[in-house]
Amino acid sequence: MTTFPFVPDSQTPYYRQIYDGYRAAILTGRLRPGERLPSTRALAEELGISRLPVVNAFEQLLHEGYVEGRTGAGTYVSASIPDELAQVHAPIERRSTVPPKSAAKLGPFRVSLPALDHFPLRLWSKLVARHTKALRIDDMAYGDPAGVTALRVAIADYLRTARSVQCDADQVLIVSGSQMALQICALALSSRNTNVAIEEPGYPGARDALQRNGAKLIPVRVDNEGIDVEALSRKSVRAVYVTPSHQYPLGISMTISRRLALLEWARRTRSWILEDDYDSEYRYASRPLGALQGLDTNARVIYIGTFSKVLFPALRIGYLVVPRDLVSEFARHRESLDLFSPTLEQLVLAEFLSDGHFARHLRRMRALYHARRDALVRGLAQHAPMLVPHNTDAGLHVSAFLPRDVDDVALANLAAEHGIDVTPLSTCYAGRGARSGFILGFGGASERRLTAACKTLGEVLTEALR
Amino acid sequence: MTTFPFVPDSQTPYYRQIYDGYRAAILTGRLRPGERLPSTRALAEELGISRLPVVNAFEQLLHEGYVEGRTGAGTYVSASIPDELAQVHAPIERRSTVPPKSAAKLGPFRVSLPALDHFPLRLWSKLVARHTKALRIDDMAYGDPAGVTALRVAIADYLRTARSVQCDADQVLIVSGSQMALQICALALSSRNTNVAIEEPGYPGARDALQRNGAKLIPVRVDNEGIDVEALSRKSVRAVYVTPSHQYPLGISMTISRRLALLEWARRTRSWILEDDYDSEYRYASRPLGALQGLDTNARVIYIGTFSKVLFPALRIGYLVVPRDLVSEFARHRESLDLFSPTLEQLVLAEFLSDGHFARHLRRMRALYHARRDALVRGLAQHAPMLVPHNTDAGLHVSAFLPRDVDDVALANLAAEHGIDVTPLSTCYAGRGARSGFILGFGGASERRLTAACKTLGEVLTEALR
Repeated sequence: MTTFPFVPDSQTPYYRQIYDGYRAAILTGRLRPGERLPSTRALAEELGISRLPVVNAFEQLLHEGYVEGRTGAGTYVSASIPDELAQVHAPIERRSTVPPKSAAKLGPFRVSLPALDHFPLRLWSKLVARHTKALRIDDMAYGDPAGVTALRVAIADYLRTARSVQCDADQVLIVSGSQMALQICALALSSRNTNVAIEEPGYPGARDALQRNGAKLIPVRVDNEGIDVEALSRKSVRAVYVTPSHQYPLGISMTISRRLALLEWARRTRSWILEDDYDSEYRYASRPLGALQGLDTNARVIYIGTFSKVLFPALRIGYLVVPRDLVSEFARHRESLDLFSPTLEQLVLAEFLSDGHFARHLRRMRALYHARRDALVRGLAQHAPMLVPHNTDAGLHVSAFLPRDVDDVALANLAAEHGIDVTPLSTCYAGRGARSGFILGFGGASERRLTAACKTLGEVLTEALR
Repeated sequence: MTTFPFVPDSQTPYYRQIYDGYRAAILTGRLRPGERLPSTRALAEELGISRLPVVNAFEQLLHEGYVEGRTGAGTYVSASIPDELAQVHAPIERRSTVPPKSAAKLGPFRVSLPALDHFPLRLWSKLVARHTKALRIDDMAYGDPAGVTALRVAIADYLRTARSVQCDADQVLIVSGSQMALQICALALSSRNTNVAIEEPGYPGARDALQRNGAKLIPVRVDNEGIDVEALSRKSVRAVYVTPSHQYPLGISMTISRRLALLEWARRTRSWILEDDYDSEYRYASRPLGALQGLDTNARVIYIGTFSKVLFPALRIGYLVVPRDLVSEFARHRESLDLFSPTLEQLVLAEFLSDGHFARHLRRMRALYHARRDALVRGLAQHAPMLVPHNTDAGLHVSAFLPRDVDDVALANLAAEHGIDVTPLSTCYAGRGARSGFILGFGGASERRLTAACKTLGEVLTEALR
């Protein structure tokens, strides 16, 4: 009955073997559109394993569009597999060197994943079609490393209004995301052997980008108000990387007194503040605070933003706002990395912003994420009470603590074997004294899916912690 | 009559002051659509300067779409200034920190610029519209750092057939252009303090990318067969960067015996060859040689390609083909730079390649560029005989030598004052003994425009060299 070789091996989780097997069978045409898959119960029996991994594998296939479920009538291979999938059967059999990431990347708790199924794709498509047809020669040639002017204007307008950022369009540089933004900062800091402070715990992506450019990282503890500025003042650093709106991973919003202290420190020591304003758009409990940059009167703040989490990651557009005297230096570094960003997306995004579609999208998403956050918090309380959520007022993820002495990495691996991917909190610590817990994204999964995932996670943890 | 402040200053060339002035007047609305500009003769008289800079400024405005010419009826502000231009009037007055590059970048001799006005934009728009509408959630989320599988398959197919590259799809990594490709090579070479040989003269972009990642560059002389492998063998280097199809800037196609010697050197010394196969698609005199990579039996070649010059630069897609054992390492470095390339463009390009549109486009362009090359070579012979073209059989540019003792940078600056941008040949030399000359692109300008530009350039040089 199974159409793929199922060799239980201890290396690969069951659900993954089942998912991979069916996916390959569909893509290579061994299973044709419309063909029915066995029931999860029958397949579990045949393979001699529990039903859970089978259900998880089928859900993943369903979610990715390989199969369709008809209520009460079983699961079928989708009638139309998109062309770009159907073409891959040749290399898929031997692409062991580049592991396919799609299976894990859309899991219910995936951090930083927005609600892609609620993105206004039809409207976006119209704008894309219109702008592509109207591309001028200038738009197809080598572009300005700093970005398309219309987009820089639209972003500056948005940031002034929505985030109280003080800027003009010519201070905005378009980049491919916060990863590149941080690299440009590192280049401008000429970071080799330069001390840069980071939050402890903090965002591993920032740690990596700064470290790769030779910076020496100095972790500084985060307390309930944000980064500890007193501790920071005792270090000798040229810059500090902070996430004031929604501290990654703990979710703290930096208090106003702490913000002022940080700016005063930067003024006094002539240091730079790298403000990563990710997740600032979503606040559920109170009005969002403006950006730290807006309070700065000494041009010490480099502001970093991205559209990956408010629109979609595959757009690859982020931005930097830099003090006026640094613009040309930053633009030079941006050019040295990969010249400039694709022009079409910049033109489309400029219109999406300036015509108000972006603001409307954010409003709709705020309500949706609010409900998803509630489902997650409720699901944890009901099914996984050993996970204690911390600062749930904002953003697209919640950090939840586990008892102090448990190994969160081992538990995350165990959960993965049951088809539930979670990010261990301890991976965000650069030094000792890591708290044990999980970072649980809730942006990309429906309330139903979140509740179900909490249930599975609760079962796994209950069993493991017994 | 002039609607902008014209203050002859010695810093900025006349044509540029006129161009900037009219552009600002149009963008800020001081000149309305449909309004007539003075005749070039009248304006030159009013300003008390020669007609040439006025004509050059008007041509640039015409070319960029700010104004329209009606034969025999003068020049008018375009009826429809694209929105993204019309919006910029606020920042344009003070964006001195980011100089607008569009004026120079589309000049007739611009190197690496393809014939953008002959790109099949209508067909491309259809593909873009279709793929945008059909984007799946998976396509909008975080993508594979190595690229979209369908595109990797299509590129591997193309390279095997057209360039005799030995590869499978899983050896192909999608990047944003050759700039990023070189950075990934440098990271993989862990190039800090590593000796890397480059061609002398050679491509400054490669020099910059390798140097920025800490490589120590060792220039190795190029002779009429390509890089001097005997000289290379006397150096201690870990890698060499070469352009075998169309040596940059001299245009030599590396001979087969030299190719075999280079591969043998790499085998013996266990060094890497970075093969930048740019411009390989266009050969006018004989059939193109296959890639160096295709002759390699020891997995020593890293192959670099880009679509910037065969489709359009603003697409921002290039690729690497790497030996199988290096794939995962290269993919990791690619991810560390900026995660992955925008997904939409990759899906569209995959179809453009696999449906044969790409091959058809190349065929059409080959004929077009052949004619443009002829126009340039004829134009130089007729109007600028002091410029002696060298290796005109391939590619999108021609290097032309000047008498040995003249300062090509000074002459290029002089030409720029007359609205003609050229790249001085001496800038491609890392060491002493630079040849004097110009690198003249011919891909982006019509035959008529090339002839006219040769005439102006000839006049400037005749006057200067007298």
